[in-house]
Amino acid sequence: MPRPISLPSPAQAASRLADAGRRFYDRGWVLGTSGNLSAVTSRRPLRLVITSSGTHKGRLSGREFLTVGGSGTSLPSKKGHPSAETRLHLEIVRARGAAAVLHTHSVWGTILSDLHAADQGLVIEGYEMLKGLAGVRTHAHREWVPILENDQDMPRLASATHDVLMRDPAVHGLLLRGHGLYTWGATIDEAERHVEILEFLLEALGRRINHGHHHHS
Amino acid sequence: MPRPISLPSPAQAASRLADAGRRFYDRGWVLGTSGNLSAVTSRRPLRLVITSSGTHKGRLSGREFLTVGGSGTSLPSKKGHPSAETRLHLEIVRARGAAAVLHTHSVWGTILSDLHAADQGLVIEGYEMLKGLAGVRTHAHREWVPILENDQDMPRLASATHDVLMRDPAVHGLLLRGHGLYTWGATIDEAERHVEILEFLLEALGRRINHGHHHHS
Amino acid sequence: MPRPISLPSPAQAASRLADAGRRFYDRGWVLGTSGNLSAVTSRRPLRLVITSSGTHKGRLSGREFLTVGGSGTSLPSKKGHPSAETRLHLEIVRARGAAAVLHTHSVWGTILSDLHAADQGLVIEGYEMLKGLAGVRTHAHREWVPILENDQDMPRLASATHDVLMRDPAVHGLLLRGHGLYTWGATIDEAERHVEILEFLLEALGRRINHGHHHHS
Amino acid sequence: MPRPISLPSPAQAASRLADAGRRFYDRGWVLGTSGNLSAVTSRRPLRLVITSSGTHKGRLSGREFLTVGGSGTSLPSKKGHPSAETRLHLEIVRARGAAAVLHTHSVWGTILSDLHAADQGLVIEGYEMLKGLAGVRTHAHREWVPILENDQDMPRLASATHDVLMRDPAVHGLLLRGHGLYTWGATIDEAERHVEILEFLLEALGRRINHGHHHHS
Repeated sequence: MPRPISLPSPAQAASRLADAGRRFYDRGWVLGTSGNLSAVTSRRPLRLVITSSGTHKGRLSGREFLTVGGSGTSLPSKKGHPSAETRLHLEIVRARGAAAVLHTHSVWGTILSDLHAADQGLVIEGYEMLKGLAGVRTHAHREWVPILENDQDMPRLASATHDVLMRDPAVHGLLLRGHGLYTWGATIDEAERHVEILEFLLEALGRRINHGHHHHS
Repeated sequence: MPRPISLPSPAQAASRLADAGRRFYDRGWVLGTSGNLSAVTSRRPLRLVITSSGTHKGRLSGREFLTVGGSGTSLPSKKGHPSAETRLHLEIVRARGAAAVLHTHSVWGTILSDLHAADQGLVIEGYEMLKGLAGVRTHAHREWVPILENDQDMPRLASATHDVLMRDPAVHGLLLRGHGLYTWGATIDEAERHVEILEFLLEALGRRINHGHHHHS
Repeated sequence: MPRPISLPSPAQAASRLADAGRRFYDRGWVLGTSGNLSAVTSRRPLRLVITSSGTHKGRLSGREFLTVGGSGTSLPSKKGHPSAETRLHLEIVRARGAAAVLHTHSVWGTILSDLHAADQGLVIEGYEMLKGLAGVRTHAHREWVPILENDQDMPRLASATHDVLMRDPAVHGLLLRGHGLYTWGATIDEAERHVEILEFLLEALGRRINHGHHHHS
Repeated sequence: MPRPISLPSPAQAASRLADAGRRFYDRGWVLGTSGNLSAVTSRRPLRLVITSSGTHKGRLSGREFLTVGGSGTSLPSKKGHPSAETRLHLEIVRARGAAAVLHTHSVWGTILSDLHAADQGLVIEGYEMLKGLAGVRTHAHREWVPILENDQDMPRLASATHDVLMRDPAVHGLLLRGHGLYTWGATIDEAERHVEILEFLLEALGRRINHGHHHHS
């Protein structure tokens, strides 16, 4: 479902991402400087505004963002250095044409990404909330959320991310094991909506495991 | 317990519903643009102010509301289109004489509506909190919360809602499976109170299942 | 541990109780107009400022309070009527010399008051948090929290409350089954501290039941 | 990883610690006047700004702090008396060269410190969030969190704390049984980050125990 997208200026992107960061922090999804947030401000040449490494995601003022080019290195005259995971953002932007990539780090995402690691993913099915994912029209939708083994070797992790995005063209997000969620959108609003939806569904899945029942069995 | 009701203006209704939306959002009950909120502003002809489809329920400014007539189509000169679930709101308004209808989408409502789907409802009994539901005078009250199978065919779902409301005249709310809660009230305040009470009770039910005990057994 | 207490004016008491109500509402402890809050403003004659019945405890402005005398009836020229549970507040004020009585209605208080009803109370022991209760000097303290069967007959419930307070002079709070917590203090601050401590401990007890372990076994 | 540290003035330290206290209170980590917060304002002579005993940690204005010297007694002309646990703060400052020491008191910290007391500690391993701890470079890091038996004899508890810090030079925090978490940092920001990380990980550990699985088994 392509639609014309008006890209934000770097200042607009930073302001809007800072608002999202504050809301994620309030819900405990980016504690301890975890998480990172980016948005595309130009397609040609590719320019990405992204949180610099180690910043607090609940108190972003706009100055904690860097602009990076397509190679993932920050442009001259900028202070700080971009998040180590910038390569993953760029893989997602390229593979999906996304305008924003958001990474959160919730308790439920951490737990479920580990419990289901042996399956290399988990299925979410039968929930009305799925209809908030772009292009999904019914709660009967079966969403596959791939889980990648966590890795401190960023080129290798970016390559694994690329492979998953190519293999599973329908996914709306992915989990890194013991690490958290990556999702994206055609706008910053859509990406934030995807975070809320996927974090909600992970919480629902995590809480119902205790009940010893399986969904729609 | 009928009482004289002074209906709000469309602007008053939108402002008051926006406040409720913000509070529901803070509690995680309307994430990802889920949920929808409406209030009656005129009985003859019937006029309903309702959130337009796909809006963020935590940041409503008043402009995201539409006025619809009794057929569920929005009045001319309005932007956006009404929530797909407008028909359900209208069924409830007509069957109950409600002045406000609120739909939330919590984690516990999602889980319990699925766990109890085979019973087509769940019982809440013995809790003092039940006394906050209109007309309930004692914690010994036995509240039946019907669960309807979720359905993307809105006329069919509206018809099923109608049937449940006719069959169970005493219910204060209903659940759609894997989808969430609908409740209503003689005023917007009463409807919001019913949301808080029913969401509280669903959470209490959901948390105690883990303990392997049954209430008042 | 008696200490000289300077009682607040009715306006000061209402303002301070409204602040506490807002904080309890934020934590989900007084949803759906549940809970009630009172403070003594005069000893001779006894005057109690108390939330009027059915008010929202998260948005108190000060006007939702009534002044009642020792018989529990509101003084002339006041609007609304006092909480049905005013008698319980008066019993506690008299039996304990309390200057403030706070009633909250949390999910964990609701669940635990039902799970332990057959024992007519529950024990909290070994937690450092207990030291925040007035007069407690060590985490080794054993706190007994009586549980009373819920009752819509207020004189009978007030009488049962009186009996429990006489029988268990050391208790800092009590639970009504399926209903919630009553606690109190020599000042409004102390009463609010007792709410936070007892609600915290009830949550800790409730969450650890799932783990199938017993405390300090 | 030593780095040059510019110590804050007492007023700066109090203001910054008050902000942290408000955030901890919002998350329920310092309820009921629990917890205490300190920061070093001078090394020679050693000066520590610390919350005075019994203050509310969510509403600190700056006046609730005392300055203590290396012996733990407050300097003349100050009102109130320092937290009873000041000795523990001083042990940590000396053993670790910390510039800030923060003590929180969460539900999960309380539960886990008791469940694992017999092991005298717990292991956290395999989580990306661990990388936010100072000096940790990979999620494969194995963090040992010692648990000390709670004790009202402060000299004895300070001595036990000293022994643990000497024995386990790599630890970033420690738990007192049924009491809560102590952590620290080379700056107040780093100490607050450590609180968020360790509280997050304790919650993740606590929630997954219910699932009957072990991490990375």
